[in-house]
Amino acid sequence: MRMRKKKWALPFLEQYPDLLYKDPSIYKSKWKEKLGSDEIHLEIGMGKGDYLLKMSELYPDVAWIGIEKDSNAIAVALKKIVGSNTDNKCLINNDAKDLLEWFDENEIDIIHLNFSDPWPKNAKKYKKRRLSSTNFIDIYDKILKNSGKVILKTDNAQLFEFSILEFLNKKYILEDIWVNFRSETHDEDAISEYESKFIRQNLPIYRVIFRKGNL
Amino acid sequence: MRMRKKKWALPFLEQYPDLLYKDPSIYKSKWKEKLGSDEIHLEIGMGKGDYLLKMSELYPDVAWIGIEKDSNAIAVALKKIVGSNTDNKCLINNDAKDLLEWFDENEIDIIHLNFSDPWPKNAKKYKKRRLSSTNFIDIYDKILKNSGKVILKTDNAQLFEFSILEFLNKKYILEDIWVNFRSETHDEDAISEYESKFIRQNLPIYRVIFRKGNL
Repeated sequence: MRMRKKKWALPFLEQYPDLLYKDPSIYKSKWKEKLGSDEIHLEIGMGKGDYLLKMSELYPDVAWIGIEKDSNAIAVALKKIVGSNTDNKCLINNDAKDLLEWFDENEIDIIHLNFSDPWPKNAKKYKKRRLSSTNFIDIYDKILKNSGKVILKTDNAQLFEFSILEFLNKKYILEDIWVNFRSETHDEDAISEYESKFIRQNLPIYRVIFRKGNL
Repeated sequence: MRMRKKKWALPFLEQYPDLLYKDPSIYKSKWKEKLGSDEIHLEIGMGKGDYLLKMSELYPDVAWIGIEKDSNAIAVALKKIVGSNTDNKCLINNDAKDLLEWFDENEIDIIHLNFSDPWPKNAKKYKKRRLSSTNFIDIYDKILKNSGKVILKTDNAQLFEFSILEFLNKKYILEDIWVNFRSETHDEDAISEYESKFIRQNLPIYRVIFRKGNL
């Protein structure tokens, strides 16, 4: 989701060097120690951070790392997070294509993908950019531990179908699936800012959990 | 789908002994010969037969066998089929639990499941009755050829999710998936009488194709 440019964003981001990184490679293989938890969750494309913030409150024993390349969006997220208990979370303002530079093999427990860009226009040309395309799955596969998971949530039917085919193609196990996730109460999962718009419009939310198979 | 009792149904069904069977086990292993096609498709729970009839017109070189235990529903289907070109189709008025008595190993190319009963009440107790439960999949597995397919279509989100988990659990390959099948034109697939109701109500139609893996 692209946002309007915010003048305050870039200077603000520089004020919290231990909470927001551009290049966090110095923590590679040291995240558990740094964040004080044995379980590390990544949200890739975290947008304005509602999901990350709520989830880090729901699961305070887990360490949460949010990744977002849009500086304007992540500045809004940082604002919210600065005001909260910050011990178990931090943010990375960069492109997820560089994940392997920041995280070691088997270092991550769960990757969350919420309402990622579906790149609908000229799908063939752009589908490699989708965060659930096989070239991204190959990257996730390296940093995820065995039996690690990817939890994907979207309003976009085509992206949902595409993601299922891509992950199954890469031998991930489809552990659970919902084609109308918010038709029931799910207190275990936070509603993102983007998601609440779709719920108000009574549109279905799709969700799926993939587990990395032990090959 | 249960129907009101039709007085004419049972006597009518007896008028077409070579088009509608109660016990077709005499044709076991001989279906291709009998129906004059190398490719046999089954529709299990065919209801009033709209789908079977339209598909047999769309694919005239394929042999079509419709199974339905409700005599009132299948009588309506038979009426439609009697008036059409009947060479490539026939009906079985009985419970699909006896499939193995009627069909030999590897005899079937594709099984179609359209809007099967989701058995929603007391799901735990009744889920074995669902046509996409693992005990039915074990039966399909025997009569399907290698790389044979099951094509499932439903309006019921829970049944759809359940079916995906059951077939993947049985090592079927998820070949394709649609969570809003009728948002695009699909001339390759016929709309059943039940389906057209949901389309009019603007409700999503879910569809998935499973392929039997070669283990």
